[in-house]
Amino acid sequence: MDWKIALDTVWVLVAGMLVFFMNLGFGLVESGFARAKNTVNIISKNFIVFAVSSVAFLIIGWGLMYGDGNPFFGTQGLFMLGGADNSPAVGDAYTGVYSALSWTGVPLLAKFFFQLVFAGTAATIVSGAVAERIKYGSFMVFSFVLVALVYPVVGHWIWGGGWLAGLGFWDFAGSTVVHSVGAWAALAGVLVLGPRIGKFGKDGKARAIPGHNMTSAMTGALILWLGWFGFNPGSTMAADPGAISHIVVTTNMAAAAGALAATALAWVVLGKPDIGMTINGALGGLVGITAGCAFVSVGSSLIIGGIAGAIVVGGVLLLDRVKIDDPVGALAVHGMGGIFGTLAVGLFAQDAIAPGTTGDGLFFGGGFGLLGAQATGVVAVAAAVFGVSLVVWLAIKATLGVRVSEEEELEGLDIGEHGNRAYPDFVQTETVA
Amino acid sequence: MDWKIALDTVWVLVAGMLVFFMNLGFGLVESGFARAKNTVNIISKNFIVFAVSSVAFLIIGWGLMYGDGNPFFGTQGLFMLGGADNSPAVGDAYTGVYSALSWTGVPLLAKFFFQLVFAGTAATIVSGAVAERIKYGSFMVFSFVLVALVYPVVGHWIWGGGWLAGLGFWDFAGSTVVHSVGAWAALAGVLVLGPRIGKFGKDGKARAIPGHNMTSAMTGALILWLGWFGFNPGSTMAADPGAISHIVVTTNMAAAAGALAATALAWVVLGKPDIGMTINGALGGLVGITAGCAFVSVGSSLIIGGIAGAIVVGGVLLLDRVKIDDPVGALAVHGMGGIFGTLAVGLFAQDAIAPGTTGDGLFFGGGFGLLGAQATGVVAVAAAVFGVSLVVWLAIKATLGVRVSEEEELEGLDIGEHGNRAYPDFVQTETVA
Amino acid sequence: MDWKIALDTVWVLVAGMLVFFMNLGFGLVESGFARAKNTVNIISKNFIVFAVSSVAFLIIGWGLMYGDGNPFFGTQGLFMLGGADNSPAVGDAYTGVYSALSWTGVPLLAKFFFQLVFAGTAATIVSGAVAERIKYGSFMVFSFVLVALVYPVVGHWIWGGGWLAGLGFWDFAGSTVVHSVGAWAALAGVLVLGPRIGKFGKDGKARAIPGHNMTSAMTGALILWLGWFGFNPGSTMAADPGAISHIVVTTNMAAAAGALAATALAWVVLGKPDIGMTINGALGGLVGITAGCAFVSVGSSLIIGGIAGAIVVGGVLLLDRVKIDDPVGALAVHGMGGIFGTLAVGLFAQDAIAPGTTGDGLFFGGGFGLLGAQATGVVAVAAAVFGVSLVVWLAIKATLGVRVSEEEELEGLDIGEHGNRAYPDFVQTETVA
Repeated sequence: MDWKIALDTVWVLVAGMLVFFMNLGFGLVESGFARAKNTVNIISKNFIVFAVSSVAFLIIGWGLMYGDGNPFFGTQGLFMLGGADNSPAVGDAYTGVYSALSWTGVPLLAKFFFQLVFAGTAATIVSGAVAERIKYGSFMVFSFVLVALVYPVVGHWIWGGGWLAGLGFWDFAGSTVVHSVGAWAALAGVLVLGPRIGKFGKDGKARAIPGHNMTSAMTGALILWLGWFGFNPGSTMAADPGAISHIVVTTNMAAAAGALAATALAWVVLGKPDIGMTINGALGGLVGITAGCAFVSVGSSLIIGGIAGAIVVGGVLLLDRVKIDDPVGALAVHGMGGIFGTLAVGLFAQDAIAPGTTGDGLFFGGGFGLLGAQATGVVAVAAAVFGVSLVVWLAIKATLGVRVSEEEELEGLDIGEHGNRAYPDFVQTETVA
Repeated sequence: MDWKIALDTVWVLVAGMLVFFMNLGFGLVESGFARAKNTVNIISKNFIVFAVSSVAFLIIGWGLMYGDGNPFFGTQGLFMLGGADNSPAVGDAYTGVYSALSWTGVPLLAKFFFQLVFAGTAATIVSGAVAERIKYGSFMVFSFVLVALVYPVVGHWIWGGGWLAGLGFWDFAGSTVVHSVGAWAALAGVLVLGPRIGKFGKDGKARAIPGHNMTSAMTGALILWLGWFGFNPGSTMAADPGAISHIVVTTNMAAAAGALAATALAWVVLGKPDIGMTINGALGGLVGITAGCAFVSVGSSLIIGGIAGAIVVGGVLLLDRVKIDDPVGALAVHGMGGIFGTLAVGLFAQDAIAPGTTGDGLFFGGGFGLLGAQATGVVAVAAAVFGVSLVVWLAIKATLGVRVSEEEELEGLDIGEHGNRAYPDFVQTETVA
Repeated sequence: MDWKIALDTVWVLVAGMLVFFMNLGFGLVESGFARAKNTVNIISKNFIVFAVSSVAFLIIGWGLMYGDGNPFFGTQGLFMLGGADNSPAVGDAYTGVYSALSWTGVPLLAKFFFQLVFAGTAATIVSGAVAERIKYGSFMVFSFVLVALVYPVVGHWIWGGGWLAGLGFWDFAGSTVVHSVGAWAALAGVLVLGPRIGKFGKDGKARAIPGHNMTSAMTGALILWLGWFGFNPGSTMAADPGAISHIVVTTNMAAAAGALAATALAWVVLGKPDIGMTINGALGGLVGITAGCAFVSVGSSLIIGGIAGAIVVGGVLLLDRVKIDDPVGALAVHGMGGIFGTLAVGLFAQDAIAPGTTGDGLFFGGGFGLLGAQATGVVAVAAAVFGVSLVVWLAIKATLGVRVSEEEELEGLDIGEHGNRAYPDFVQTETVA
């Protein structure tokens, strides 16, 4: 047996487990930022979405994304990992149908597991933005479609050897593939759903609807930070000591800078260091460094993270202004953070850090070529995912319906959708509207 | 130094840490499903039980389970790991007294740690079923006896080279060894304790006593799911890349299928997708795949998990019907799930997946031989553990007492047993009598 | 590529991630032991402190601690890891400026990450002791100074090849370097701040101010226990199978013994097994074994953990008696536990366990030499850290101020410092003055 295959497998699986754990992180951040009366619904969504994703990615998503095919989607090995594969043969020696991942010699099921937890992340991002008003069953249907079809097709363009990869677009761990995809799918849902009752007053101004549990939110945020140590360094899919050490540190520094920048900016703009901004700033920093974690220096990671954190603060305030109701800030964190992070590769990448990959970005003398490719990818993914998601959401609306009744929304979705209460032993206050 | 020993050790230790973390998962699921007034008591039980288990397994349990001896229990190296051991020598080269684990070359203390966290799991399963009425000290005493004597002896039969192993009984990661053992010990305790005040009305019908914190329950469930990625793949006790990748995926798929099946069934039977059923369904899927995770295909894991999830829903409703009061559903999850999972090996095992182990099960042309061995193990373990546990519980009842006073139960065990309140800053509602 | 470098790197990074996760553990223990009205502030402190530490340790702390220099602090490679380094060259082959860590061949950034999470731990210990009355900004400033200057200088003495290391002082994973440093810095802060309003009655007696969320506290404690499996065995900074297996077990046994001893002692002294004592006892056991985990036997780890757990119970009661107000028990756990653990090396170390390191301690025939060196280190670190911290705290007091207004303290720091409430949907009781 080869030590490298064994060690790489342990690394990929452990990293995948950390990414799996992000389901809890998202569940706690999202439910913590929402009201107590919708807690059961939100955490149920975050829990079941990974079950749905597991089945959807197994039966079709994996093959569409990583099966050999055309520049747009995979056409081989589509059903239940049923294609030929001779891992651990790598590179030219690989003769299976999942050649886009032939650079890593770990077993097929290790590749599958790691990619599955990524697919699940994209779906779980949607959950937060549509929270507090979406029907449980309709969310499950959308999640299935997203992970079975939308995510894998776009993913194929970039990580499956498709047309964006051919164009020189680089997204190391998924600022675009995972985070922007989730955010664009969510934005379509948010627009179809409309804002929560009471979010915008008669004067049109946004009203704060405070989250019910900051302990949950902070717990979730730290779990996400931890999970990102699997998400980014694990995307090497090999235990390359130099690369994974580098990525762990850039990831951490971007999170730290994002938290500090958002806290400072909130302190200035809002007058106090709002905890929601601190949390979302850190998450923004993490999303921002995801595309470039392997390509930029530690110093650059501080700058990228700091800018991303500031963008999140601005983004949350901006979305309120334009009357887009995202209860947890997911669009700012994953959408704006994802776009910026993807573009940041075009600005901060250094050929010396990962030779033979991105080349130099604009700030390091590489000109506008890389930045142009990154921008192309951002726009293409936005158009595709937003467009298709809108159609899917509208189809669901026309059939199952997407939004719970006004009564149910006021009473809380926990009773209406699940027949449960999250905290029956505690006396609760009247919540907004 | 040998890379394989070093890598296997890292893998076994990391997997063991994940299993250790399941203590938190159990603590949160159990306390979340119980009332606020008993929270301190439940989480104290779940915390201290691992401390008790650590000592009990160190001073005697390990030796009884893995010491060389007769088909029924170990007789060598009994006290505090004090037996001869020449790990990393493996197989025929091994000359120590813990030869049942001589197939893995990791250091003795790595073997011990991994087996210790398993022993602790068995004990923590009991905690949930007996919750909300048991005396703290009496629970500690039972846990000590379980981990020092009962669990190791039964474990010796199966994993220690004992008579059930000789019979061709297979339980890869402990559907029977850990989960059923915990459940049978719990059932004996539940019968000795009787139901909680107010659980069954004067009409004899079961009344719902809602859990106080669904955020806790869901957090615990996802931690358990994560922990199972140590529990099942770690049971290889070696970083075999093909095996651990396979087991991670079968484990995950069974959990997903269990969650989906239980959610769907609850939706049909109860009218709504009850969150408790979703959670327990996932856990049932995990328990169900535990015995066979290394022996069955990914497709089979979906079926096994789905059936186990459905069994849990039926089991919870059935136990209510027969007036057995298990506040958290542990008997359905670990008992029924564990029995089904053990039998499922006899149905779904495929020789091609782990050549030279189980052979083929009934559904893959292997006939009834394997299924018969599995059924024998199920019955033997049930009889032994339930019988001995009943005696131990009755002995404790006759001496220390097992149940708190009626007043204390009504007031909550937090005050009565610990002098603490879990949430003193919050106004609480009156709970069910 | 060398398998050892790759495996060591994976091990060090995974261990570092577990230590990072301790930030959540501390945040939940500390906020759980405090009142609901200060929750946002406490968890914000615990979150932002790691961001602050990341920047502080990157830009200067690392170099001061591990840069080559004199016996008192590093003078080379000070700024942003900017010194020469030729890892993975080890030992005599190493020609970089961070030679104190030249014994491990992992990449520089892996070393940095692991040491960074340790630095963050020291800072987060302070957070709990000064909780419920400190200004958010002032805490951030102190944390920056601690991690940029104080911690690294003292750390250089012991782990950076400085004068205490030369004296034969041994602290394997940081009972002194991390825990005592945090505690002495905290004590200075506690004295400068004074006790919380209402903590000591007019009769001078301490009043209990119950923590608001025992679920949080227990969750945090188990996360810390898990994190310690990175903290102690990871301090090998190499995947040495024998050493890490040994350390995992000694760490676990000390925690178990600490929990049991503290629970038993609390049962005797307070009449009931108080959950706070159980938790802090386990943490005390963990702190106590941290210095000696690699040098003492499994049997000794039980004794050390048990004594440390008992010390924590006594320490908490003693600090109340002398009117030092530490809301979470951090001074007893990290201060007294850290001192005892450091001295315990001088008592329980055995040359046979880690040949060529400590030699034998007093109880194993080694005489008073080792114990004397340990005591010297304890005193030197105490004097330096307490003294410098006192000056820093007083300087902050004279400029920014350290304590919130009386009104804000009564209302809760969540509103005053952050403009947030942690649990707005729940009706809360009046808390102690």
